[in-house]
Amino acid sequence: MPIKEEKLHIELIDLVQPELEAVERKMNEISIEVRGPLGDALRYLIQSGGKRLRPALTIAASHFNAHRDPNEINLMATAIEMLHTATLVHDDVIDQSLLRRGNPTLNAKWSVGATVLTGDFMFARSATLVAATHNMRAMELFASTLAIICNGELEQLFQLGQIDQDKENYYRRIDAKTASLFSTAAESGALLSEAPESVIQALKQYGHDLGMAFQIVDDILDFVGDEKVIGKPVGSDLRQGTVTLPVFYFMQHSGGRKQVEAVFAVPLRDRSQHIDALVEQIKASDALAQAKAEAWRFAHLAQQALLGLPQNAYRQALESLASFVIDRHL
Amino acid sequence: MPIKEEKLHIELIDLVQPELEAVERKMNEISIEVRGPLGDALRYLIQSGGKRLRPALTIAASHFNAHRDPNEINLMATAIEMLHTATLVHDDVIDQSLLRRGNPTLNAKWSVGATVLTGDFMFARSATLVAATHNMRAMELFASTLAIICNGELEQLFQLGQIDQDKENYYRRIDAKTASLFSTAAESGALLSEAPESVIQALKQYGHDLGMAFQIVDDILDFVGDEKVIGKPVGSDLRQGTVTLPVFYFMQHSGGRKQVEAVFAVPLRDRSQHIDALVEQIKASDALAQAKAEAWRFAHLAQQALLGLPQNAYRQALESLASFVIDRHL
Repeated sequence: MPIKEEKLHIELIDLVQPELEAVERKMNEISIEVRGPLGDALRYLIQSGGKRLRPALTIAASHFNAHRDPNEINLMATAIEMLHTATLVHDDVIDQSLLRRGNPTLNAKWSVGATVLTGDFMFARSATLVAATHNMRAMELFASTLAIICNGELEQLFQLGQIDQDKENYYRRIDAKTASLFSTAAESGALLSEAPESVIQALKQYGHDLGMAFQIVDDILDFVGDEKVIGKPVGSDLRQGTVTLPVFYFMQHSGGRKQVEAVFAVPLRDRSQHIDALVEQIKASDALAQAKAEAWRFAHLAQQALLGLPQNAYRQALESLASFVIDRHL
Repeated sequence: MPIKEEKLHIELIDLVQPELEAVERKMNEISIEVRGPLGDALRYLIQSGGKRLRPALTIAASHFNAHRDPNEINLMATAIEMLHTATLVHDDVIDQSLLRRGNPTLNAKWSVGATVLTGDFMFARSATLVAATHNMRAMELFASTLAIICNGELEQLFQLGQIDQDKENYYRRIDAKTASLFSTAAESGALLSEAPESVIQALKQYGHDLGMAFQIVDDILDFVGDEKVIGKPVGSDLRQGTVTLPVFYFMQHSGGRKQVEAVFAVPLRDRSQHIDALVEQIKASDALAQAKAEAWRFAHLAQQALLGLPQNAYRQALESLASFVIDRHL
């Protein structure tokens, strides 16, 4: 259903296109300031970027109040995307990934050291962008979000291969590693536009719920996605030992838990075939449908969060976005 | 001359001891907030910490004006030390170091991924500490310093094995990777105490010059230091291909450049013996004395920067510190 996706996709992105282009220009400006290989790396990372969903959220969230300074919104949206890119750069080091979005990762081209430092530079540079808004609350929010993301990533790392964790653990983890940034992207756009506190809180909630839905869908796509689209082999999470929502549902089925335990008991080097079989079993069960229902639940929560907001094209686009993140490739 | 060192050392550290202890408590509080292995890692890193020279600078620099809020200074000094520790954690990943200050690095105990994320968390957490001062200028200064440090580290990485760079390159690099944080440590203490701009600028200049002297001495100690004290084998920089000030001076001597070129032309795996011989030649030349003279020049500049400041015990201690950083192990 590429046409439907395209249509859903376009609604928000089209609406904020001129402002997203300004974000793109800002990122390019920053990369041009930097000499040598770091500048090249930044340009490469910017060019191989994704949908810019997070800065689009910041921009859209800033359109619910007249007191917006486009320059401040631009700084914040750029910072959000740069922080996101920095976390991806470090993720690729952590997972030793060689491909992202079908392009070679920086990690595949550079040493670990250079890759780590490039991510660090981007964290720092994103913080200087937020500082340039001169908005203390945005600054505090941004710094604490980065701490939450890192903590979430670390929890994920330390929970690899642990099937004794409960589902609450999973929700806490995806909240920290994904929903927190969606939430901050939306909240910061609203607060920089000096929107009333109720609007700020509604958009923060929307961002959080949207991020939860988004990550659950990502975790489903890891089972059923087109490798060319998701840019990594099917079952990657399970292969790395990351227990995601479909696996939790599968373990609740009769005999499911025993099967997962058996696979995780196989030494890592012999596990690949067993993982393939387990992936097929999970796909054959209704675990993915259960996870999808949960993603829909969060998408609906996101839409509900918008109910108190002024009616405008941005509210409409955010509403559609919530169903798009579910429908995108499922 | 351990007695002399001890005496010089004690002067600044003694003076700010109660406030340094508060920094230590703050760091411990932060580590206790964090559950699981990350909390353990933070406690380990805090316990194996160094002299706390940078937070001592922040504290001392805040004592030139009456308008100081001890809590703000504590937040900033803790942030400075935490940022410094984070850069060391990432440095150890980059250099693949297994020991620091005689203790196993986090890198030696954990995966690269966990180590990178721990550094990231500390960057983020240090930024939240600065944000808690609610001082916009401190926040901007802090974020831009982090960007400068990362950029400096990256330049160093890309200049490995390059002997065609000029001395200006070396100065720019140590300014970015070391002097910038000394400078920010001092500047931020002064600005948070709402000192007059001339005092802020003087302390910023002092921090910069002190940091330059400190790094040049570090680079000399890499040739002559006691392995047990500096915690790494003699000639480490040269072994990694980092060209430091003593090497620049050695290359200016008759035939020096040719000798360095010859060693760098040897494939890395066969280079070790040649490096040992080169280290001995550099020690036998007057390159180290020339570098030390340059360190003294910066130490004197640091002392001169203090001349306009109010006379007090802190000014006296900072003055002594400038000669201590030269005398510490030479």
